[in-house]
Amino acid sequence: METAQRIERALSQALERAGGPQCPAGLTAAVRHAVFPGGARIRPRLLLAVARACDEDQPPVTDAAAAALEMLHCASLVHDDLPCFDDASMRRGRPSVHAAFGERTAILCGDALIVFAFQTLAHGTQGSPHRLGPLLATLSASAGMPFGIVAGQAWESEPNIPLALYQRAKTGALFAAATAAGAAAAGREPGPWLRVGDLIGEAYQVADDMKDVLGVAAELGKPTGRDQALGRPNAVAELGVEGAKARLKGLLAEARASIPPCPGADALHAEILAQTARLMPQSLARPAA
Amino acid sequence: METAQRIERALSQALERAGGPQCPAGLTAAVRHAVFPGGARIRPRLLLAVARACDEDQPPVTDAAAAALEMLHCASLVHDDLPCFDDASMRRGRPSVHAAFGERTAILCGDALIVFAFQTLAHGTQGSPHRLGPLLATLSASAGMPFGIVAGQAWESEPNIPLALYQRAKTGALFAAATAAGAAAAGREPGPWLRVGDLIGEAYQVADDMKDVLGVAAELGKPTGRDQALGRPNAVAELGVEGAKARLKGLLAEARASIPPCPGADALHAEILAQTARLMPQSLARPAA
Repeated sequence: METAQRIERALSQALERAGGPQCPAGLTAAVRHAVFPGGARIRPRLLLAVARACDEDQPPVTDAAAAALEMLHCASLVHDDLPCFDDASMRRGRPSVHAAFGERTAILCGDALIVFAFQTLAHGTQGSPHRLGPLLATLSASAGMPFGIVAGQAWESEPNIPLALYQRAKTGALFAAATAAGAAAAGREPGPWLRVGDLIGEAYQVADDMKDVLGVAAELGKPTGRDQALGRPNAVAELGVEGAKARLKGLLAEARASIPPCPGADALHAEILAQTARLMPQSLARPAA
Repeated sequence: METAQRIERALSQALERAGGPQCPAGLTAAVRHAVFPGGARIRPRLLLAVARACDEDQPPVTDAAAAALEMLHCASLVHDDLPCFDDASMRRGRPSVHAAFGERTAILCGDALIVFAFQTLAHGTQGSPHRLGPLLATLSASAGMPFGIVAGQAWESEPNIPLALYQRAKTGALFAAATAAGAAAAGREPGPWLRVGDLIGEAYQVADDMKDVLGVAAELGKPTGRDQALGRPNAVAELGVEGAKARLKGLLAEARASIPPCPGADALHAEILAQTARLMPQSLARPAA
């Protein structure tokens, strides 16, 4: 099955278990709105690529891990968009969850997605109970505190923001979880896979910064120029366009070099290169790549 | 070790792993504020009582399950108190989390506690990996959708609220999880233990309704008369004081009768009776009990 289809199927099969007539209709609809249609699904794609490179032998475990990771990501978007944070009324070219369903339902939607991510993990590992512990440890660490996305978001409320720690938690953590959980889903030690995910996460952050400065809103599905408006750090502001491009290339080369030994390392190399094109703003990637 | 001490120790040892200098200080402080000092810790008490009745053999697993359950409960209180929900500025006799730390940190505090509950479960079951699946399934179901506390809270935003489903999700789910997870922590099938927790949860709801109508704010640690002010159902309003007392007694008797066969059933009977006194408003429990 093609990767994109596999991710959508894993997510929709999981969410079928969440709703139903005995669940409040607004919450069910908000959760679906937060998850479908998705963005680039870049984190579960990376997770699946690593699991394949590690000769995955339990596809339901990989599917559950990929769906759980994407749910945690979607939950963070729903809460980040809330009026008291970014106050973003658009996301992926449509109304954000709080704009469409109200603030109360948006808060609960994020909560429900966090819980459901872990519930999905429990469900998907019923036949392989020894895979659950490392997966749960990996995904929960990437979402929570001290180093996960929730902590990353919380840095924005602190008077002094340690930039590396902030970006590592806010963006890097879920990428590190993607590679580590991909390996864990295939029965490998997750630890050695954190570094490659970290580096891809850093690359993603640089690419996102470039899109924020140079991109068009239609390509991004959200307004551009937000970093400057919100006083947030941005690699292009710091390094210039060419400097940011060079940094992005360097990070991806380092990521490729950090892949632990595994049967499908070459194919994973190729996949990471292919992701480069996805990561770059299209206006930059097309002419000179 | 005395039960109360054991619960506080499990929670504080878990939270030591969450904070530290690399975590945003506001988030760390808010999470501590949400968890300490606690309320009656009635859910983890019940979990520990069931684990003991089932001859618990892995105390670290029981501790992790009890701490996780209480964290999920605390998370729900933090989010329920938010301005867009109950707008409660006091909780347990002190400022609520959003009153003390602001709305942004309160939202992230709830998120972090949900994630950390599951992370605690992963940590506590490292030596007993086969206990993790049933515990994770039980606790995540009680927190999420369609039947957990998040769904329960979401019913409050629906035009028509099915009362039994609402109360089951909003209050009953975590009590059912307390008994089921207590059994699962001791290596037993959790399913047969859901019913007794359900019934204790219903009893708790009736007792809480009585406190809301009859209690004094100091005893409750929050304002009274909230149900009427917020247009929420209340057993005293529905059955009168004597009717509500009779219903409470009936539910607790049924709960005692629903305890599945286990080595410590008698001690568990006694514990549930002792909880009755805790559940009742002191003004009613003292003179005539």
